[in-house]
Amino acid sequence: MNGTIYLDNNATTRVDPAVVMAMMPFFSERYGNPSSMHAFGGRVHQEIENARAKVAELIHADPSEIIFTGSGSESDNQAIFGGVEAMGRDTTVITTRVEHPAVLQSCRHLREQGFNVIEVGVMSDGTLNIDDYSAALATPGKKFVSMMWANNETGVIFPIKKAADKAAAAGAVFHTDAVQAVGKIAEVDVSKIPVNMLSFSGHKIHAPKGIGVLYVRKGTRISPLIHGGHQEGGRRAGTENVPYIIGLGKAAEMAMDELASGGAKRISAMRDKLQAGLVKCPDAMINGSLNERLPNTLNISFQYIEGEGMLYHMSDAGICASSGSACTSGSLEPSHVVRAMGVPFTAVHGSIRFSFSRYNTEQEVDYVLSVVPKVVDKLRGLSPFVK
Amino acid sequence: MNGTIYLDNNATTRVDPAVVMAMMPFFSERYGNPSSMHAFGGRVHQEIENARAKVAELIHADPSEIIFTGSGSESDNQAIFGGVEAMGRDTTVITTRVEHPAVLQSCRHLREQGFNVIEVGVMSDGTLNIDDYSAALATPGKKFVSMMWANNETGVIFPIKKAADKAAAAGAVFHTDAVQAVGKIAEVDVSKIPVNMLSFSGHKIHAPKGIGVLYVRKGTRISPLIHGGHQEGGRRAGTENVPYIIGLGKAAEMAMDELASGGAKRISAMRDKLQAGLVKCPDAMINGSLNERLPNTLNISFQYIEGEGMLYHMSDAGICASSGSACTSGSLEPSHVVRAMGVPFTAVHGSIRFSFSRYNTEQEVDYVLSVVPKVVDKLRGLSPFVK
Repeated sequence: MNGTIYLDNNATTRVDPAVVMAMMPFFSERYGNPSSMHAFGGRVHQEIENARAKVAELIHADPSEIIFTGSGSESDNQAIFGGVEAMGRDTTVITTRVEHPAVLQSCRHLREQGFNVIEVGVMSDGTLNIDDYSAALATPGKKFVSMMWANNETGVIFPIKKAADKAAAAGAVFHTDAVQAVGKIAEVDVSKIPVNMLSFSGHKIHAPKGIGVLYVRKGTRISPLIHGGHQEGGRRAGTENVPYIIGLGKAAEMAMDELASGGAKRISAMRDKLQAGLVKCPDAMINGSLNERLPNTLNISFQYIEGEGMLYHMSDAGICASSGSACTSGSLEPSHVVRAMGVPFTAVHGSIRFSFSRYNTEQEVDYVLSVVPKVVDKLRGLSPFVK
Repeated sequence: MNGTIYLDNNATTRVDPAVVMAMMPFFSERYGNPSSMHAFGGRVHQEIENARAKVAELIHADPSEIIFTGSGSESDNQAIFGGVEAMGRDTTVITTRVEHPAVLQSCRHLREQGFNVIEVGVMSDGTLNIDDYSAALATPGKKFVSMMWANNETGVIFPIKKAADKAAAAGAVFHTDAVQAVGKIAEVDVSKIPVNMLSFSGHKIHAPKGIGVLYVRKGTRISPLIHGGHQEGGRRAGTENVPYIIGLGKAAEMAMDELASGGAKRISAMRDKLQAGLVKCPDAMINGSLNERLPNTLNISFQYIEGEGMLYHMSDAGICASSGSACTSGSLEPSHVVRAMGVPFTAVHGSIRFSFSRYNTEQEVDYVLSVVPKVVDKLRGLSPFVK
């Protein structure tokens, strides 16, 4: 097998060549500022609005409810700080222990500023502890909830419809970080699920790194995170990233086509084949619910061995996967997600995440299955813990 | 003359084709996440650091002092909110009346939160009112200054060395919005001028829209604006916009070459030729100092006529220029910059900004001079105010 087997699509994805093609004219030819008062800029403004309509369609929103940002992290920060600022300092903030750092660190920053912040736990399969969540919602006064749609490390899907309904019943404002869900599952539909805000990111759906989206339902109040110009309806200042907005419009269109044509099934078939092969390894265990899970994600631990060693050996064999998430890498601490699930210490350091995209093939799965079990055997031979 | 004569380079610039070439491999081939623990991602990390070194060199900084952001506006917001948060709520904020909205609106937001904010005025030629500035610095207690290096509308350059020296003597933290200065004048050199922070933007120097830089001098404390991942040394969360960072590295290299090879002189020669031709129009007046001015900018009023009408007629003739700035356009209010200068009411609505880049030619200037005086004559014929 030549080249790279890229199974790290929850970290980032390949930009689709059709997305690159769509962006190209906007770098050196149609480079006008959409705010300019000449036709050269004005015509670009119209293209931005066309892209906004496609992005809105992907999640069944109205185009006026779409704010383009610089990343999923910015969208999360904007939702949390902007939402809470509009609500006032006496707001209780409810989140979960397994959120992405962009949410968790933002909430912890609010705690340092004196806000009451409640972190709801998860069950051992990574699903939401719904009793804890209901108890948190019973807190008197104003409440703001930020809860991810699907977990980046395990792929576990939270019951967002139920959680948003409960929040609405409790009078709470509800934000969801849907970075890992949008484009992967068709259920992300704001016309059916009463979230107030929803974040997602371009680079998880084959658009470039450096563009995010914040959906803000009509009537939900937020303060800007970035003050200044009139762009994005005064909600996010800064000259629009025209090429990436156009690219994201194209990527949204392609994600809709992919979902409509059964892409999720094709992807989960590959994931399930990989899973069936890898669970045969000695002391393998899957982290996270098998039912409430993204179609593209497999998080598996090989007990008694280090995830990091696995990743290096796989990288040498041209296979890209990850341990924990790219956003918390560089630290030797085990992932806060598997810790919150209570994964045993013999497995917590050995969790590996494989995450698929529409570019992967069954051949690649066969290759991975010819490599990884040997790496597991080799590393088990070196482990002082194997019985 | 065919095609578009683009004289609106203070609003945005054409992405240099060499910049596009440099970015291209990072969309669909080298698309790994620089934080990933596989070689496919790790090698991208090294390219980012190479680009950071070039960007640092452009302003004579250390690479560790460079934070990549999503725009010049984000850089300004990060500097102001992050700087003031690190200093505490009893900080006095000093700025000027002619700042870009990303600075002015951020400072006004701090004022709404109870901060003491002083807006220093300018002289009738747009230069800094240095007495007002000194008086502001005499305020007791902690002080944070945000002052632009060069004005986007008039091109007037503020005495940043003098202003930063005075701030240092008064114990104030000094930020400068250098969006219009970087790449245009060689004086932007943080090894010689004691600013604590400096913002600039990619899309004013032939990199794309959607990337900015914040320089933060070692030892200057800031809080993040976007919380979450460990990226940019924990100072700005979010997966790195790899293609644009690489592109900005290339654009920085080209800007250094351009400055070293006398580009500023070639550009000011064209600007001066345009100016010499246009001041011959009846009732023309130049807004802003002729001496302390960017080489590429001409802001001129034709009294008794509307800037907007001028722009539409020029746009029809294929000439792109602007009235006020793109960032405040869409409002019918005259620019806050020319108002702060006390430009007479007969001229305040008729100010037009021409701004050059290295792509402009003398031929284009000849064409503009063959068109604009006729437009002025025509509109004067329609004006009820012309004597």
